[in-house]
This record gives sequence, C-alpha cells and structure tokens, in this order.
Amino acid sequence: MKIAILGFGTVGQGVYNILTKSKKNYQEKFGEAVEVAKILVYDDNEKNAIIEKQIVENAEQVLTPDFDEILTDPEIDLTVEVTSSKDKAIEYIRQSLAAGKHVTTANKSAIAADFMNLQELAIKNNVHLKFEASVGGGIPVLAPLSRVVAFNEISKLHGIINSSTNYVLTELCKGRDLDEVMVEARELGILEADPTDDVAGYDARRKLAILAMMILQIDIAEENVSSFGITQVDSHDTEILREQGYDLKLIAELLSGEEAGLKENQFAISVFPTAIKDSKFSRVNGMMNEVAFFGSHSGELRFYGAGGSMYPTANAIVSDIYEILTTEPIYFPALENSYEDVSEDIESSFYIRIPEKLMDDKSILDEINSLAEKVIQNDKEVIIFSKAISNQKAIELFECGLHIIRINKAID
Amino acid sequence: MKIAILGFGTVGQGVYNILTKSKKNYQEKFGEAVEVAKILVYDDNEKNAIIEKQIVENAEQVLTPDFDEILTDPEIDLTVEVTSSKDKAIEYIRQSLAAGKHVTTANKSAIAADFMNLQELAIKNNVHLKFEASVGGGIPVLAPLSRVVAFNEISKLHGIINSSTNYVLTELCKGRDLDEVMVEARELGILEADPTDDVAGYDARRKLAILAMMILQIDIAEENVSSFGITQVDSHDTEILREQGYDLKLIAELLSGEEAGLKENQFAISVFPTAIKDSKFSRVNGMMNEVAFFGSHSGELRFYGAGGSMYPTANAIVSDIYEILTTEPIYFPALENSYEDVSEDIESSFYIRIPEKLMDDKSILDEINSLAEKVIQNDKEVIIFSKAISNQKAIELFECGLHIIRINKAID
Repeated sequence: MKIAILGFGTVGQGVYNILTKSKKNYQEKFGEAVEVAKILVYDDNEKNAIIEKQIVENAEQVLTPDFDEILTDPEIDLTVEVTSSKDKAIEYIRQSLAAGKHVTTANKSAIAADFMNLQELAIKNNVHLKFEASVGGGIPVLAPLSRVVAFNEISKLHGIINSSTNYVLTELCKGRDLDEVMVEARELGILEADPTDDVAGYDARRKLAILAMMILQIDIAEENVSSFGITQVDSHDTEILREQGYDLKLIAELLSGEEAGLKENQFAISVFPTAIKDSKFSRVNGMMNEVAFFGSHSGELRFYGAGGSMYPTANAIVSDIYEILTTEPIYFPALENSYEDVSEDIESSFYIRIPEKLMDDKSILDEINSLAEKVIQNDKEVIIFSKAISNQKAIELFECGLHIIRINKAID
Repeated sequence: MKIAILGFGTVGQGVYNILTKSKKNYQEKFGEAVEVAKILVYDDNEKNAIIEKQIVENAEQVLTPDFDEILTDPEIDLTVEVTSSKDKAIEYIRQSLAAGKHVTTANKSAIAADFMNLQELAIKNNVHLKFEASVGGGIPVLAPLSRVVAFNEISKLHGIINSSTNYVLTELCKGRDLDEVMVEARELGILEADPTDDVAGYDARRKLAILAMMILQIDIAEENVSSFGITQVDSHDTEILREQGYDLKLIAELLSGEEAGLKENQFAISVFPTAIKDSKFSRVNGMMNEVAFFGSHSGELRFYGAGGSMYPTANAIVSDIYEILTTEPIYFPALENSYEDVSEDIESSFYIRIPEKLMDDKSILDEINSLAEKVIQNDKEVIIFSKAISNQKAIELFECGLHIIRINKAID
C-alpha cells in the first residue's frame, strides 16, 4: 500500500524511520508492503534541508509542496496527518476521507473540533479514521478503549493526559521553584514559547473531549469541559498540599451514570489541578501519562506510557496503520443518546489560597472564610480547604485570581 | 455467527451473560449477531441445575454433553474454551482449529504447553486462535502487546501476573501472619485446596512463557523459566524487608538483547519473589495484575487491571470474539531465531534467611556467610543480603530449604 505523510516534523520523521529503517519485516506483519510514496513539505528551505541530510530516500520524487498531488493520486490509500495546524489538518483529513483514503492523525485539536463530522465522513466513504496518537501520545489506549467501550458501560475515567503540565507539577512537588521550573521546561522544549495551550488546560480538556465522545457517542465541544489549568498554582501551594499529604496532578475526569453517583443519563467532564492522596496517579511523573477507566464488566483498567515525543508517538501512528490494514473500521458516530451534561454542578472540596495582592479585598476574604471547611492558615495569608462547592463556583473563584485546586481523595 | 461455549463455570457463565443479557447492541458492534448455539456440560447434575435455575435460554437444546456434536456442526464457527482441564482443553482447541473453527480460550496451561503446535494448526486452517484471558485475566494486554511486538524490539518485560500470590504478599506486607492469611485466602476462594500451582510460581511462569513465546517467537517450555515461588516466604521475611524499605512481589521477568544488558541473541526469563524499592509495582495490590514492557519505539508501557474473576475474564473473552469478527488473525509461529537462553546465569543480590531448623547445619551457615554482601542479622538467626549470585545458585539454595528472595532495585 502506498501512503503519504503530511508534514515532516519529529513525528512524521519518526513514522518514516520506523516504516523504512527498522530491522523487522513489516511486509510480513502488514500482509503487504507499505511504501511512503509522498511526503508533504511546503517550505523550500525545509525540503532542501531534507535532501541535503539524505534522511529521505528518493527525496526529489517523494517530497511535494502540493497536497492536491497526494489527494488526486489514486494509488495512495492512506494519509498520515502530522501537520501542526488545526485548520489545515481538518481540511486535509476531510479531503482525504472524502477521496476514499484512510487517515491516521496525531492532531488532537482537529479531532476534538471536528469529531462527529469526521466520523460521518469516514463512515460514508467506508474508510478508517484513526487517532491513537492524539490522546496519551505513545500509549496504546484508544484501541483497547474502543474494544472495551463496545461491551461495557464506562462509569468513570481519570487521566493524566498532558505531559508538559505533569512535568511542571512533578518538579514543583519536589519543592522546586515555579519560575525556575518554567524556564527549564522551556529550555528543554517541554513548554512552548507560548505555553497557554498546556498550562491553561486546553490541551487536556480537548483530549478528554475526544475520550468522552468515544465513550458517550455524543458531540461534545471542548469548551464544555469544566476546567481551569495550573496558571494559578505555584511552589507555595504544592508545599502546603504536601504538608497535608497530597500530591498535585492535572486530572481529567469523566463521570457517567449511576455507578458514578449521577443519574442514569447524566455525565460530567472536568480538568482541574487536583490534590490526590494514596492514588496510583502519584507514580505518574514527568512526561508520562496514564489513563484509568472503569468498565461494567472489565472493572478497573489503567494504561501508562509516554505522553508524547518522537518515537512513542510515531509508534502509535504505525500501530494505526497496522490496524487500518488488518481490522474492520471502528466508528463512533453520534447516537440518539439524551445525555445531560452536569459538569458545572459536580461538587467537591477545593484548596483555596488568597494571594497577597488580593488580601485587601474584604469581599473576597469574607466569601472565602464563609466557604471554609478547614482553615489551614489565617494570618499573613489565607488558605482554606472549602466545603463542597460546584465546579461552576470554583471556576468563578479561579477567575477572581485565587489559587484554587480541587481536592479529590476518591481518585485511585 | 453461531458459537459454542465449552464448560460453564463462572467464566463460561460470564461470557454467556455478557453476550445475551447486556443492554448494548452487540450485533451492531460485531457486524452480525452472535448466538450461543451450544454449551458443553458433561455432568447431568450440572445440566439439571442450569435448567432449574433458568440461567440459559432454551437450555434443553443448547446444553450438550457431547463435544462431537459441536465439532461436527458446520454452523458453529467459533468455540469458547473455558473448561478447567489442561489435557481436555488442548484436545478441544486442536480439534476445533482442525475443523476450521476459531478458538478463544482462557486456559493458560493448554496455551503454554502447546503454543507452537496450536499456532501452526491455526495458520494451516486460516482461523483465529485468541487467548487474551490467559495472561493478566481481564487486562487487555495481549492485544496491544501483539501490535507493539510487530514494530518494536521488546527488551524488558516485568509483570505481576498471579493474583493469588499477590493477595497473600499484599496481606503479609501489611504485617499480617502467614497462616492467618493462607486460611483467609482459602476461605475467600483466592487459593485452591491445593494451592501449589499458584504459590510455587507455576501459574506465573506458565503465563510468562506465553508472553515470551509471543515476543521472541521461539518455543519455550514453562519448566525453563528460572523460578521458585513464595512457599519459603513468611511474615518474618516481609517484616525484615519492610524495615529495609522493600516491598515484596512475585515478579515475572523477561530480558532480551543488548538493551537489557545481555548479548544480542540472548534472553532470560524468571519468576521469583522479588524485593522491590521505589517501584510502580508497589501500587499493584491484592488481586490486581500489571504487565510492563519496554519497546524500542514505544518506550515503557504498563497495563493494569483485574487478574481474574468472572466478568473481567469473561470480558477479555468477549473482546477476543470481537477481534475474531473484525480483524485479520495475528499469529506467533516459531521463527528461525537462534536465541540463547541464559536464564540460569542472570546474577542478582538475594535476601537469604536461614530458618531455625537449619541453623545447626554448619556447611549451610558457612556458605551463606561466604555469600554475604551485607549481614542483616547474625545472632539467633542469620539473615543476609548476598553478593550477586546466579539464578541457578539461588534455586539451589531455595532447594536446601532457605528463605530466599531476589532483590531488584532496578525494577521500575
């Protein structure tokens, strides 16, 4: 089978290398040879660099700046979408599916934003749409989840699904200073120049939306995930929490139905910095990810591995290619499910700290004192563990500039 | 598709219930209806009990004591082998494959003992042979492993893959008394009346042999796993180890090639009670299992879930049925690989305790003292951490009646 790789950054190069340079005999595994016939690279400088470095065989023929050349080539049956732009990715995926080509993509932004449309398009054209690398990076979790979902009601899912913030929180929990960690993370390439997508929790909520759409088979906008990120968390917060016996992680959560304490057709999805105690997530450190879920028959299942980076992500994409060649497509079209989203109403205790700059604001001081279940500090600064308050209320408090962290001792 | 279930114990009943009594529309998932056409039950009393309890619809037609009736029924395309006898299971699986029927089985004894013959038979007849439930119970680990193996060299695998011993060790590590725990485990049905298979490590080494045959694609006899079980471990040992900061688990290990510190074509497989420190396996307690492995591209991957019990195991079998209906078969035939088995030569430090009854044996005392790297106690009893000794040597010491536990701080 001839395939095209759209984009040739680290992941695209990883896929190319695995497919062309490994020792193993993939033809035997795949049942047929897989040939990288085209690689989409727009930029002349990038193209020249690839040719010069000799990292692509037959580069002059293989590299093309023209997506239409790939789209209209009837011999290319599969596109590997690893560009970085969401809008371009959506366009490439749509056009590929419409042209009857299978697609595997690592682009979580594209998949989250256009999930149900892409499902419909894939179904209509009877082709595979795979996105294993979009959630949990190198962990083979979507393939097993697809199969568990088929025969189980999923009542709960918890995950550490953003590597950058997990790196930052892991280092903070060692007692290190936030600024120092942020500088280091940027230097190491763990955080981007503009780290908003990661630290504000957008990346995690988008991955959770993908998981939730697979599980519930309803359309979910990533903006509907109750969420805030780690932008108002610093070393002082982690220090206080550690004194109280807590670890801090950015936890994505899906709750569904009666088993999760909701009503039958209710669900809730959230991403919050979360103080956990005696939880298995405490061992998920640095750039590693873990997704845990509970199936009605399967019981608790946990999947742990690298949240990203070149070869783990590329390996996930190669696994998708393998699935495309050897399995029937699995689709997650929107069903006529009348779920009620109660994400905003879920109640928990929260750690709340009034930062110095807000200590003169009497209305905030009064409100936080009125919410206190347990007062941790009340002299130069105010730190409380709150009574159960709703996610909506917590988000309001976050938006006031408070340091606020969900407390959830129930997460195993 | 019509299927037959061979045996109707808890797992067989679980499969039947999931397929016939769940809310989900499996026909849509499977692409076709799956009908349990026959259930093999030899015993008249068992048959009558099933009829009386009305747990099988149309029981008079469905239940049969005659395997040939199933074998010769051309409409039955798949047998679910969940009998308890190894020899019968091998016979049923062989005959089913030879008759062109797909097979899924939970029987690790049968799969381990006849792995390569069954692979050949499945290939010859172009049918699936699936055994997800045979290792790691309800964890979907063999399906992802199959796909990772296709594109990765696996250098290391570690697993807690026997639930009963993990239960016993978990309780011991809480400071409980061995006899009390053993009695309780028997009462709870966690240990069988004759618990040898579990406590001597036979079950774990057989599951490791299955994993190793999938990974290395060479024939491996379970007896070739360097191994002893937990029969010479008691509460006093766990107490001493805990004082030294160790947890105790029965760890199955596969090492392969240079990445694992061996030569390119060498491998080593072992199952030992193992003292671990700062390891993620410490969070795998009670009846839970975990399998962790390292792929050359995927990096570290870990799979955690229920090691057995009715519905998790049944769910694994239903997943196999789903795979049979929707994927190309994956086979693990023996390849022309010239691997060298160096299991006996692998060296580690071991915890060694001379039990009271052997304290008068001067030759043992002298030998153990000569092996000591660190002496933990040397008055009423002798307890040491040894220098690096080979697995073979450790097994000899075990056979002398010593309490002996591998120490491996490198297991993450």
